[in-house]
Amino acid sequence: MNTENLLSEGIKATPPSFVRGILKAASDPDVISFAGGLPNPVSFPQEELLQSVERVVRTYGSNVFQYSVTAGLPQLRQYIADRYNRLFDLPLTADNVIITTGSQQALDLVGKVLLDKGDGVIVEKPTYLAAIQAFSLQQPVFYPIELTQDGMNPQQLERALQNPVKFIYAIPNFQNPTGLTYSAENRKRIYEIVKDRDVVFIEDDPYGELCFDGEHQPYIGAGKLPNSILLGTFSKTVTPGMRTGFIISENTELLKYLSIAKEAGDLHTNIFSQYVIWDYLKNNDLDLHIAKIKALYQKQAQAMTDAMDRYFPPAVKYTKPHGGMFLWVTLPEGISAMSLFPKALEKKVAFVPGDPFYIGIENANTMRLNYTNADCETIREGIRRLGNLLKELLK
Amino acid sequence: MNTENLLSEGIKATPPSFVRGILKAASDPDVISFAGGLPNPVSFPQEELLQSVERVVRTYGSNVFQYSVTAGLPQLRQYIADRYNRLFDLPLTADNVIITTGSQQALDLVGKVLLDKGDGVIVEKPTYLAAIQAFSLQQPVFYPIELTQDGMNPQQLERALQNPVKFIYAIPNFQNPTGLTYSAENRKRIYEIVKDRDVVFIEDDPYGELCFDGEHQPYIGAGKLPNSILLGTFSKTVTPGMRTGFIISENTELLKYLSIAKEAGDLHTNIFSQYVIWDYLKNNDLDLHIAKIKALYQKQAQAMTDAMDRYFPPAVKYTKPHGGMFLWVTLPEGISAMSLFPKALEKKVAFVPGDPFYIGIENANTMRLNYTNADCETIREGIRRLGNLLKELLK
Repeated sequence: MNTENLLSEGIKATPPSFVRGILKAASDPDVISFAGGLPNPVSFPQEELLQSVERVVRTYGSNVFQYSVTAGLPQLRQYIADRYNRLFDLPLTADNVIITTGSQQALDLVGKVLLDKGDGVIVEKPTYLAAIQAFSLQQPVFYPIELTQDGMNPQQLERALQNPVKFIYAIPNFQNPTGLTYSAENRKRIYEIVKDRDVVFIEDDPYGELCFDGEHQPYIGAGKLPNSILLGTFSKTVTPGMRTGFIISENTELLKYLSIAKEAGDLHTNIFSQYVIWDYLKNNDLDLHIAKIKALYQKQAQAMTDAMDRYFPPAVKYTKPHGGMFLWVTLPEGISAMSLFPKALEKKVAFVPGDPFYIGIENANTMRLNYTNADCETIREGIRRLGNLLKELLK
Repeated sequence: MNTENLLSEGIKATPPSFVRGILKAASDPDVISFAGGLPNPVSFPQEELLQSVERVVRTYGSNVFQYSVTAGLPQLRQYIADRYNRLFDLPLTADNVIITTGSQQALDLVGKVLLDKGDGVIVEKPTYLAAIQAFSLQQPVFYPIELTQDGMNPQQLERALQNPVKFIYAIPNFQNPTGLTYSAENRKRIYEIVKDRDVVFIEDDPYGELCFDGEHQPYIGAGKLPNSILLGTFSKTVTPGMRTGFIISENTELLKYLSIAKEAGDLHTNIFSQYVIWDYLKNNDLDLHIAKIKALYQKQAQAMTDAMDRYFPPAVKYTKPHGGMFLWVTLPEGISAMSLFPKALEKKVAFVPGDPFYIGIENANTMRLNYTNADCETIREGIRRLGNLLKELLK
């Protein structure tokens, strides 16, 4: 039998990852790739994590190898609650935290727990492509809201909320893919629009701590909206390879259902890694470690925008990142970044064309570039190659 | 807003885990618990795994901490293919294997990729309770097939296949919860019934290697049926805490969709642990290690059935395990194991009543007992307590 006939409607509605395809094409060692979203390996505290492995095996023995509880290691949940209370003035206990297998799993779980086929989901336009994937399995109706320099367009948000919407999914800090951050004013307006609605507000915040300068903006929902969910991860600050993220919510009833979905999904997150990360956090200064990562990424971001200033034709626009891992390039209207991609590969430079970050848009004139996983010299050379191509194209 | 109103139909259809509730009640240190499904901690090669951690960090550096590919570590996939080819005469390459976050995630993925609401799923009666959970999220129609001493009832299977069924889910070796193994004859009959149908055959085999005596029976679908899926795990042979399982299929087109679902679910399985387990397997003799686990579990199983022979009233029946981790007790008809449970807890002994292993059956006269996670003396004492209670009840 044709495999196609066996498939669910949900999986058929789920776009395959464009990035995976790209990464293969970009795996030629001569290609300078800004396509992936990889942290710089120097952000992994390898020696300290190795020390933590030894310590937890010696101290907790078989507990670090045995089955464990679905919600996650209580000590790690407590650490997360304490940290968010200290940094962001939230009122959390360990009961407000569930450990997930990367924050990608959190997207899967909220989709499962909140969405039936045809339910509405509000997302940014553009938004994180793997969130589109995770939610698409439930076959929702997406309502994309324009993302401006200030954040979500409030008028569009109000209009979209006329529809039967289950949740709003937003990445307010150093957004993936654009690198944009919502202003304080925009956050207040969104809060005011959402606060009396029966809708869950999901803030995905993997990059908030990678803030190059200034203060972390207050959360829109966390600590304020009763049905808010805040997602976090250790992937950008400790290690992505150990797939350790978390869900924070003050709605413990909702967490109970997320926990049932998690149990059905993988029983619990790798407890060995939970012990190791918890021990690392207890015995090292995470703030100091993050400060080093930020200094590095700021330098690399600067190298990229400096090179763009120099090599890109003036008709090409780009965001200037204040944190996070990405910047967003806008070509003149009518120029497809997707059709630029194979030409760029020929010139040995790669990026992600905008298309997979939108719902149902093709040949967008935008592209995402990552600056965290290459040194400054490589960044300059890659942008020079891309700039030359753009100049030729826009001649 | 009431949280209930926010929930999807899928999560409302998913039974919460009965075992979790029980485990809490049974966490009193005076209670002898046969309720969980925990391997004996001696089955964890702690020192060897610690050596592997050090070796892979020294050898592969940041690769073990970075993001990785969705299908899993190629070397580990190759190891699995080679092992199954050697032991079970299968024709696998690494491309036939996807690494999953425990084999529980494999259940989640097959549900997502194959099931739409209302699709038919054939399961054993009784079956693994967390498979019921994982599939229930997709709201299928379950067709439970009586599990006899020989395996699945073939007549019932043929009848159930008249319905629009997407897949058959079976645990042919040392089944959870019953401990039963399908006979060679039964396997042939099932193969004959299934072979010309447009249906996926899923063999879940976490316990097959824990075979106390005799040969591993041939697989029903793997290597024979084009749309067969074989699930395996390192949870019972190396460590469950690292959540490393795998999907094997010769249908690589189907694997492609399972991989898309996995990417949307958690991007990839913890790569640190994949490296560690692969290095452990490469540098140690797994067969020798498994032989030790089997000898231990056989002794413990014997202690349990010996104690049952001695302390249980003759009207109570139980399976005699030849492998795996569980045995299955059948009380006289009309006696509810569920209502026995609180009385057993009072006597400081715990088990899992049969109910959660069935679709829509309450007050079943059956219960599952685990014998792997207690020493022989504790097993005898626990069975003595349970036996006394049963004698009183059946007086």
